[in-house]
Amino acid sequence: MIFIGERINGGFKDIVKAIKEKDKDIIKKWAIRQTRAGADYIDVNIGAVSNKVKDYIWMIETVQETVPTPISIDTNKLEFVKEALKLCQKTPLINSTTAHDEKLDQLVPLAAEHEVGLIGVCMDEKGSPQDVNRRVELAAKIFTHAVEKGLPPERLFLDPVIMPLKFLQPQAANVLEAIRQFKLLSDPPPHIGVGLSNISSQTIESRLINRTFLVMAIEAGLDAAICDVTDTELVNAAITAELIKGEHIYSDSFIKAYQAAKKPGVGD
Amino acid sequence: MIFIGERINGGFKDIVKAIKEKDKDIIKKWAIRQTRAGADYIDVNIGAVSNKVKDYIWMIETVQETVPTPISIDTNKLEFVKEALKLCQKTPLINSTTAHDEKLDQLVPLAAEHEVGLIGVCMDEKGSPQDVNRRVELAAKIFTHAVEKGLPPERLFLDPVIMPLKFLQPQAANVLEAIRQFKLLSDPPPHIGVGLSNISSQTIESRLINRTFLVMAIEAGLDAAICDVTDTELVNAAITAELIKGEHIYSDSFIKAYQAAKKPGVGD
Repeated sequence: MIFIGERINGGFKDIVKAIKEKDKDIIKKWAIRQTRAGADYIDVNIGAVSNKVKDYIWMIETVQETVPTPISIDTNKLEFVKEALKLCQKTPLINSTTAHDEKLDQLVPLAAEHEVGLIGVCMDEKGSPQDVNRRVELAAKIFTHAVEKGLPPERLFLDPVIMPLKFLQPQAANVLEAIRQFKLLSDPPPHIGVGLSNISSQTIESRLINRTFLVMAIEAGLDAAICDVTDTELVNAAITAELIKGEHIYSDSFIKAYQAAKKPGVGD
Repeated sequence: MIFIGERINGGFKDIVKAIKEKDKDIIKKWAIRQTRAGADYIDVNIGAVSNKVKDYIWMIETVQETVPTPISIDTNKLEFVKEALKLCQKTPLINSTTAHDEKLDQLVPLAAEHEVGLIGVCMDEKGSPQDVNRRVELAAKIFTHAVEKGLPPERLFLDPVIMPLKFLQPQAANVLEAIRQFKLLSDPPPHIGVGLSNISSQTIESRLINRTFLVMAIEAGLDAAICDVTDTELVNAAITAELIKGEHIYSDSFIKAYQAAKKPGVGD
């Protein structure tokens, strides 16, 4: 499982405060916590807090001076992506392109040239997909574009677009079926990743819904998620689902074995 | 989800004691606990404790004088099944036939005649299945036999045979794939059920493994399980998986709504 830590995001109040006051400690705290919890990437998203590239660069530099974990460059601004790519020390992930031609033409060549990962979100200028077929159509468009422009499947992460269970309940089953079909695009298939927390938006049982959906999505073929990696029950459920699929060898202490194999190298 | 409570089984020490000492309180305690937890059936299995039909009858009568929950008649002795069928007040489940011709010829007509459910375990005189194809072959044999003898798909429960993850790890993925294929046998498909606790036999993280596997199996198409229904996390995970599949309508209190719809009628 490729875990992308969601917490350094301008959608959270403490991160807003950190950016506005240039308080490194808050950013550092979440960089360390998420890395210790096993994050493979630290997502960095400035949200609507600032539109200055120097503020975004400050966030990334603060993470990088704290942990060795690669960055997920989470922004819809091309300039931010370009500047971030210049300073990322470990191979980052660009989060994200959509299937919109203009975005694809900007971001796929950039990811190919820098030999970094790219998340391709299955939506376009017409909006979000409402069924399985539309998701597959958009995934195939992104996939084809990527392969043609020299970005191999192992660096592409297709995102079938999770929607809130509370408001769009049928979309949950559609996403699971789309994941199954995305796996057929190539052999080996591209990565398939989701922004997990959307599923439980405004629900009371959010952690239960998150981890149950994640296990179902892993069964369907998911191998990456932007999520709350500090939720131990979530991470343990994901590791167990992969164990059941045969992706790790069984041992009685399989959770510890998984974590040890990651060697986070921070605070252990 | 059809939950079959596993706890009244001669494999547990307190049940051995209850049978030997004719201590009704122990049986009653588990009948009530499992019913309150939402069991749709109470499995009754005397194991190796006694081979006297009167002892088995005593167990069933003790359950029936305590709760209104239907019985899962869990025995490999034809005489026990026949005697139990005579006294079950609510429509029971026969647990189980295999794909062995002799067993099928005995139990399918009995289930059809009494209009009760029947679990068909996908093994035969050659032993347990080791791959997906063998499971599907045995399932198709049981399914065909059942339909020919007048037992409709809605009263048949096919069991793909779970094996311990610790000792036969690849079988877990085989079972999930088999469940997917069993669903194609008819439309609507037969029920698909498992003896869940086998998956976590002799593991340390048994509850985590049980509930993760159950969620994955529900995603694959499972709709019944013999399991520890008193494990609240297990039951909540199963309800949530069904919610995600769209089998219940979302409400913020979906777990309470599910339980209220069951109206167990015991001690509430």
